[in-house]
Amino acid sequence: MVVAVTTPDFDTYPIEHTIMSAESRDVWVQVVWSDGRISRFHHIWLRDNCPCDECVHQGTREQMFELVSVSSDVHAISATVAASGGLSIIWSEFEHSSLFHAGWLRANDYGDEARAARVSPIITWDASTWSVPPTFDGLAVLSDDDALYEWLTALRTYGATRLRNVPCTDTAIGDIAGRIGIVRETNFGVLWDVWSEPNPVTNANTALPLPPHVDLPTREYQPGLQFLHCLENEAIGGDSILVDGFRIAELLRRQYPEHYRTLTTVPWNWANRATTTDYRFRSPLIVSAPDGSVNEVRVGNWLRAPLDLPFDDVERAYSAYRVLFEMTYRTDLQLRFRFEPGDLIAFDNRRALHARSEFTDVGGRRHLRGCYTERDELYSRLRMLERSMREKRVATSATYSATHSSTG
Amino acid sequence: MVVAVTTPDFDTYPIEHTIMSAESRDVWVQVVWSDGRISRFHHIWLRDNCPCDECVHQGTREQMFELVSVSSDVHAISATVAASGGLSIIWSEFEHSSLFHAGWLRANDYGDEARAARVSPIITWDASTWSVPPTFDGLAVLSDDDALYEWLTALRTYGATRLRNVPCTDTAIGDIAGRIGIVRETNFGVLWDVWSEPNPVTNANTALPLPPHVDLPTREYQPGLQFLHCLENEAIGGDSILVDGFRIAELLRRQYPEHYRTLTTVPWNWANRATTTDYRFRSPLIVSAPDGSVNEVRVGNWLRAPLDLPFDDVERAYSAYRVLFEMTYRTDLQLRFRFEPGDLIAFDNRRALHARSEFTDVGGRRHLRGCYTERDELYSRLRMLERSMREKRVATSATYSATHSSTG
Repeated sequence: MVVAVTTPDFDTYPIEHTIMSAESRDVWVQVVWSDGRISRFHHIWLRDNCPCDECVHQGTREQMFELVSVSSDVHAISATVAASGGLSIIWSEFEHSSLFHAGWLRANDYGDEARAARVSPIITWDASTWSVPPTFDGLAVLSDDDALYEWLTALRTYGATRLRNVPCTDTAIGDIAGRIGIVRETNFGVLWDVWSEPNPVTNANTALPLPPHVDLPTREYQPGLQFLHCLENEAIGGDSILVDGFRIAELLRRQYPEHYRTLTTVPWNWANRATTTDYRFRSPLIVSAPDGSVNEVRVGNWLRAPLDLPFDDVERAYSAYRVLFEMTYRTDLQLRFRFEPGDLIAFDNRRALHARSEFTDVGGRRHLRGCYTERDELYSRLRMLERSMREKRVATSATYSATHSSTG
Repeated sequence: MVVAVTTPDFDTYPIEHTIMSAESRDVWVQVVWSDGRISRFHHIWLRDNCPCDECVHQGTREQMFELVSVSSDVHAISATVAASGGLSIIWSEFEHSSLFHAGWLRANDYGDEARAARVSPIITWDASTWSVPPTFDGLAVLSDDDALYEWLTALRTYGATRLRNVPCTDTAIGDIAGRIGIVRETNFGVLWDVWSEPNPVTNANTALPLPPHVDLPTREYQPGLQFLHCLENEAIGGDSILVDGFRIAELLRRQYPEHYRTLTTVPWNWANRATTTDYRFRSPLIVSAPDGSVNEVRVGNWLRAPLDLPFDDVERAYSAYRVLFEMTYRTDLQLRFRFEPGDLIAFDNRRALHARSEFTDVGGRRHLRGCYTERDELYSRLRMLERSMREKRVATSATYSATHSSTG
């Protein structure tokens, strides 16, 4: 008889490796897999992740178990391979038992090798890598999940992509962004225009050149993704420029370690100049993740507020800013291309700097539509697409069918 | 003759202290004020902040000047007090000159004393401070800017407030949040309901007790502010609980420095369980600002994903979590009160943990409406309210009128 094994969430876990043996050790359970991998799961970790219907609400799949309801030395008094192929544990307290799905357990293995394999690559680029960002078909992205997955994987990896063939309507950009997730409303609205206006509220809506920048560094939550869709481009000039801020950070770290330290530790101030809002934020120009990798860049010359630092830090802050700023102008780092109607660039606004050259629209207009969303939304959509690929795989997998029942 | 002095933004700068003298030193300009304060402004800082119409677009008030257009040793060849009362500088390059408004210059002084005076206080609390959060009148907040300012100042300082007398309609909560700024849409929608449902997608919409938590720690951008408005409360049980996460962090830092170090450095994983989204994030439970102060807490028992750490970090992560979790249940730290229809709690969702006790709605419903916005929006609104107070002050100030003209 095969006992059904539930998982503590809505994901699907193909069983590609089976559990050969399980054994309770000191403070962990050792699991040996069919491919020879040995995994160790702490007792407290397993107890915390028990998927049973007392511990997890089976409707919401959210946890009801609270760590404080067991003692800190709760431990497995037995660990065995269940007939279902799952890991079966009997606990030292409250006569509780747990049954873990083998696919779920493998997916959540926190051994060094398993953890390393879960990291998605980030690949930086410059003008020698390609002359335009990786390009995909907008119509395909709108209708086909495989095309969507291919585009979004590139967006996550490179932080800059282009779509062509996006319908030249005012709302198409919202449809494209909506394939990812919720569009973020800001003081510019939900969808907004970039064109030269007689009474602009931002330098973006002049014909001025714009140096390489991210949008809204004035906000603590600088938008994670930006979309710019070209509806018209009859102007002279107004070339589009993209620079990989992560590549710049790499170069700075290697070539100017002192400036890099300043750029990652000394905060600048940002402010939007407006009559209706006064957003401000204070942050280093390069923000590191806890592991020392670069998490985001904040560069936007005309959105800086007066520097507000202890007197002795001012000169080194300016020196480091100058080196960074000069680097954003290096043509060997810049992709430079012209927008055609129907083109849409989608980029990580916390990584890729964008710019445009000066233009004149006397002969015809340059009109872009834009919107924002967050990295979160991108990553969630990629996971959902991957989840549905796993579902399809499992639906055709004999191995899985033999060990899993959805009636559990 | 009085020369008009422009400022490089849309704010108003009352001149409360005049400039008595100015002198160019080594790499800075020394300014002596009428109250005896001596300020120092670096040449490079002044050059960067020149408000003239070549350097700043007078329509958008955004900068056109780029640091790289001057050399790093640009310096003042003269610094004097202008007839207007402003600071006048002649530069060593391009025959450029700048005229700085005295009020603007004073407001942007970066001397130690001036910088310290600009910090807004954060005051922590527990059950001995008060039994309910600071309470304000909802109708007044909706219509009166002074009442709004008083409420929002408390919200910034204490991170938890209550309004009473908010109209019991489905949209009133949006009107209240709209007094601050843009409401943030999430997978829950823009405005959402908290009540017991037959097929809930979150434990919030069951009758289960909810341990102290923040909402959406699953998101990199955990919402900064949360609003919960009570429309009906006929249920038995369902008390509301608030805990100051910053107070908990203070206690942990003092009493359990080892656990505190773990809580601020070792990341946990978060995941929303859903069939349509898969938001995940990885972060320590207590997130420090660069200066070591606490920036946010992330606590939400049922939104945790399986811990994903190097094997040797797992036990200390669980030990520290246990101590934190126990502290969130301490009654001497919890405010516990009952929602009445028309009550609305507004709190910093990255600071104040909220909870509710189990309830039964057999005799009548418990119905809350909720929404989110960001800290950014709160701080921007406070600045705009302060700006309008300054405008009023200046409008009645003879000193200012004598030295300022808006025709510049």
